[in-house]
Amino acid sequence: MADQQARTGGDRRPSEIPVIRWEEPPEGPVLVLLDQTRLPAEEAELVCTDAAALVEAIRALAVRGAPLLGIAGAYGVALAAARGFDVAEAARALEEARPTAVNLSVGVRRAQAAHRAELARTGDATAAATAALAAAQALHREDAEASTRMAAHGLALLDELLPGGGHRILTHCNSGSLVSGGDGTAFAVALAAHRQGRLRRLWVDETRPLLQGARLTAYEAARTGMAYTLLTDNAAGSLFAAGEVDAVLVGADRIAADGSVANKVGSYPLAVLARYHHVPFIVVAPLTTVDPDTPDGASIEVEQRPGYEVTELAASQGPMAGAGGGIVVAPLGTQAYNPAFDVTPPELVTAIVTEEGVVSPVTAEALAGLGAGSREAATG
Amino acid sequence: MADQQARTGGDRRPSEIPVIRWEEPPEGPVLVLLDQTRLPAEEAELVCTDAAALVEAIRALAVRGAPLLGIAGAYGVALAAARGFDVAEAARALEEARPTAVNLSVGVRRAQAAHRAELARTGDATAAATAALAAAQALHREDAEASTRMAAHGLALLDELLPGGGHRILTHCNSGSLVSGGDGTAFAVALAAHRQGRLRRLWVDETRPLLQGARLTAYEAARTGMAYTLLTDNAAGSLFAAGEVDAVLVGADRIAADGSVANKVGSYPLAVLARYHHVPFIVVAPLTTVDPDTPDGASIEVEQRPGYEVTELAASQGPMAGAGGGIVVAPLGTQAYNPAFDVTPPELVTAIVTEEGVVSPVTAEALAGLGAGSREAATG
Repeated sequence: MADQQARTGGDRRPSEIPVIRWEEPPEGPVLVLLDQTRLPAEEAELVCTDAAALVEAIRALAVRGAPLLGIAGAYGVALAAARGFDVAEAARALEEARPTAVNLSVGVRRAQAAHRAELARTGDATAAATAALAAAQALHREDAEASTRMAAHGLALLDELLPGGGHRILTHCNSGSLVSGGDGTAFAVALAAHRQGRLRRLWVDETRPLLQGARLTAYEAARTGMAYTLLTDNAAGSLFAAGEVDAVLVGADRIAADGSVANKVGSYPLAVLARYHHVPFIVVAPLTTVDPDTPDGASIEVEQRPGYEVTELAASQGPMAGAGGGIVVAPLGTQAYNPAFDVTPPELVTAIVTEEGVVSPVTAEALAGLGAGSREAATG
Repeated sequence: MADQQARTGGDRRPSEIPVIRWEEPPEGPVLVLLDQTRLPAEEAELVCTDAAALVEAIRALAVRGAPLLGIAGAYGVALAAARGFDVAEAARALEEARPTAVNLSVGVRRAQAAHRAELARTGDATAAATAALAAAQALHREDAEASTRMAAHGLALLDELLPGGGHRILTHCNSGSLVSGGDGTAFAVALAAHRQGRLRRLWVDETRPLLQGARLTAYEAARTGMAYTLLTDNAAGSLFAAGEVDAVLVGADRIAADGSVANKVGSYPLAVLARYHHVPFIVVAPLTTVDPDTPDGASIEVEQRPGYEVTELAASQGPMAGAGGGIVVAPLGTQAYNPAFDVTPPELVTAIVTEEGVVSPVTAEALAGLGAGSREAATG
């Protein structure tokens, strides 16, 4: 069962958008989410008391974005454990809530592994639940730290590629603090540039069909006071042609072992435009986004979402939207092609920025090297 | 003053969408337009009794599309003449209603020239008004004939470029009978392929921000019974990557003397994608769209439209919409970049199909040659 309570957020600081938090009221532990389907009109919270409510929230995109999905998944396992539900079943449902973002699986499995290990060691369900929660909190904290490191690496790369500063950055979809435990991925780099006075403008693709750019990235940009301008996705070509884009920065939902990048649909056309115009196309993502088990772009499963997202317009996706419910714009019965993501091959990606450093040129070997370094550090 | 009357159109034949017609009720001549801002939900007519109402209708996109704007402009001059208004003043206002489509000017000037010549010859205002109307009607008829010839040339080109048929055509914006006295431009080619059983699928870009693809092209496609699928503009990249597009066909609002093509924003990114994927990018437009007085792409004035078209969603543009009035999706105060058109350089255009034949490769010389042939035919 999910509950909502509206709050105003006028006095919140930019980097403190409370997208996800664990609370323990007397009624038992809950996971509190900012309902991203209702932004920017309303800052409403969604309270999940079980993993099933979280699965719904993930499917409805109330909580979204690759890194945040990982954190949410881990907390979901902790919630199931703390509430005495079947942890394996909850973990399976959470992992299957959305197919493309590998982070979701990674987060779920990490909390589940901690739970399983503690249960095997002590036989104590309460201790195991505490271990699952600790794993989720560690992931949350690490993600915030990873944001900071990605932002620093990304800004250094920008300064190297584009000496002189005054960056005009084009971004697609949403990759800021709404998707992360910290400042996010691609947006965090733009924010770091802004904070150092080196961002001239953030060009914000509206990102059809769900308008994450117009609704969420513009909302985050407005809160930070950076100069930003919204555009329809198809107007990006005119910006490139006019020489108004210095770099494209996007996040990623899954990066295959060969460096192919699955990200919000519309990223690939930007990569092609960037190549045509000799503009760097930079992907910013934590290492958890790199999936060594997915060999290449063709192996990435791309989620196909309902056609009504295209044939209908909605002011917001509404709380837990399940059917269309929007304003119909296309003739009744119109069939729509609605992939949620597209895949950009490594040869079109100038660099992948992670918390462990920058991979450029993007090759399987270089990516694997970064991952190994990180695993050593984690186990060292 | 503009009047409206709703009609249902269930029994109309595909090629008989009555987008514009001249009527002479006892109250005086009027120009009746199909209000395209209300499609596909309503087939409502807009009755213009003077050129000022037509200027408003043009600005509000109730009547739109390069060839149709020319026809409307010519009828507007005839209307001003028949109603006893200052013809030169009406012509100026009509020409300035929208800046990019050269056809509008061409149509206005043709009717105005006929009016002026007859007035000089006979001194009879009524005869001059009749001459202006005859010029508008001739343009209307010629445009219908040009559609038929463009469709034939375009289909022959497709069959040459893509032997074997079963064409999967991607189109952007709207270029069918709603923009023309006949079956249109790019859409007319797809329709000709469909009628001969050689169209496998029409991929319809929704065409943000005003959704002419979702609202209008899908409406026209549905009426003809062709297989069509709607997509967000940014999903076209995935279709190209999957090898699902055999050719891109678009119309044009203005073609410069060097072959640069101004068309609905989003056309240029498709041209870049088409080039990257070795897919033909074909422009279909009547010769009136070629403007010998515009030397190159940089000389084309691109209309910048209000930002609220991007920051707000509207089910339809509403009758004579002048302010936003839609559902606000972006944070208040968000600035938007909203060019109505973009410019595709000739090196990205595989061919330009006109009623006088096909130009490929696209060069200033080849274009000028076609135009000269046409001017000779017209004066011969």
